[in-house]
Amino acid sequence: MMTTRDALRFPTSQSDQIDPYLPPSTSNPSKPFVTLTFATSLDSQLSLAPGVQTALSGPESKAMTHYLRSKHDTILIGVGTAVADDPSLNCRIEGVGGYGGQGLAGQPRPVVVDPKGRWDFHAESKVMRLAREGKGKAPWLITGSSIKEEEQKLLESVGGKVLELPCSSTSSIPWSAILDALTKEGASSVMIEGGGVVINDLLSSENFRLIDSVIVTIAPTWLGKGGVQVCPKERIEDGRRIPVGRLKGVKWVPLGEDVVLCGHPKLEQ
Amino acid sequence: MMTTRDALRFPTSQSDQIDPYLPPSTSNPSKPFVTLTFATSLDSQLSLAPGVQTALSGPESKAMTHYLRSKHDTILIGVGTAVADDPSLNCRIEGVGGYGGQGLAGQPRPVVVDPKGRWDFHAESKVMRLAREGKGKAPWLITGSSIKEEEQKLLESVGGKVLELPCSSTSSIPWSAILDALTKEGASSVMIEGGGVVINDLLSSENFRLIDSVIVTIAPTWLGKGGVQVCPKERIEDGRRIPVGRLKGVKWVPLGEDVVLCGHPKLEQ
Repeated sequence: MMTTRDALRFPTSQSDQIDPYLPPSTSNPSKPFVTLTFATSLDSQLSLAPGVQTALSGPESKAMTHYLRSKHDTILIGVGTAVADDPSLNCRIEGVGGYGGQGLAGQPRPVVVDPKGRWDFHAESKVMRLAREGKGKAPWLITGSSIKEEEQKLLESVGGKVLELPCSSTSSIPWSAILDALTKEGASSVMIEGGGVVINDLLSSENFRLIDSVIVTIAPTWLGKGGVQVCPKERIEDGRRIPVGRLKGVKWVPLGEDVVLCGHPKLEQ
Repeated sequence: MMTTRDALRFPTSQSDQIDPYLPPSTSNPSKPFVTLTFATSLDSQLSLAPGVQTALSGPESKAMTHYLRSKHDTILIGVGTAVADDPSLNCRIEGVGGYGGQGLAGQPRPVVVDPKGRWDFHAESKVMRLAREGKGKAPWLITGSSIKEEEQKLLESVGGKVLELPCSSTSSIPWSAILDALTKEGASSVMIEGGGVVINDLLSSENFRLIDSVIVTIAPTWLGKGGVQVCPKERIEDGRRIPVGRLKGVKWVPLGEDVVLCGHPKLEQ
């Protein structure tokens, strides 16, 4: 097997602990398996400020992220992250397509959710370049508004496509509609990576049940006030605030200086 | 050894992992060993709202807290917690004084920091009652303002005392002055338990260096917006925001459904 210089390895001793939280090989045709994954500081922040990439977790965590990507059909991010980070959204685990493997085997499909058509991608956006170079699949763009013809052509030229879905009154696209669209396109699993808006929306009590697994990396650092925080909308039942949700069947896996929390969502009673 | 019904046990398999983060038996006479300890949700919250006690961590965590208390000379809380929770602030680990042991051996001294004299304690406050019953030491009250003569008498009647210290311009008492006062009173270690104001103040970059160990329990739940959050003041160096602080030499100890993070503070460079 040919490998490439920048391929990553995630040791079996670690992956064995995380595998029970990953999509099963037999798929449920009615809804993709949803894995929500992100890394925070101890004060539950993703970054020091919107649009600022903040190194939080160690190198082992990077290998884990790419391992997780290899186990999902699709990886989904919100438009804020697409604009701020120009992310690669491919998988660099040793042995997948483009990194020692054939074709695009094991590469997830990048999905960008962009209700208002804000993503201003171009031919040199990383995700486009990687698709042209055979190191990643071309992205699907889920949007609620028509996009420019030239952008649609660019996307289709690398093998991507636009999925237009109706927006709700708050100019967002309901998660159930997004998951339905992914099912229709044949995706049996989706790894949702961020950013803050997407994560907080999914963790809110309205959407919590849609998540199958949560995999959170926590780094032993405090960023301090003013960053992008993971903290879902408050939940009120019978006039009083209650916790939004809890994870059950949890496992805490130390990974370098960080810890990885795996669990299955359960709405608090 | 006589034991009592409500005494707690913390298994050696767990305590062995935490002991390296506890005060050494040889004390540094210039400053007490400071252990900061608290429990949060995944969204870094102590409770659903100020003054609302929120069950976050499991029963194992309670035994750990009492074990930690047995290893410190003093346990310190802010006045907000004293007012909201009417806390016991004693140690119920099997074998300490009042719980199977002689006298008050192993019982920490409760210390309440109350700069403006807000703590409205009375003879039936838990900490007073336990002191009368021989199940805990009488509290020290650290304040910046004169307290009522009857309160001082009540405190002294159970063996407690008032330590009056000068306030800063912001009506708070500097941590260095508090630690100096504890040293002068012969305390070689202090376990700081909360609440939010005290924790965030200690985690800020001005005070971070005063902490020797941090022991944080994290429960796998999200409380949602609006609770009491652990998130220190932002840190700005050379005009840009940087992380406030990091823990080094960390250990993550799973404890029931929760995890306990132990580490030593290091200011981020």
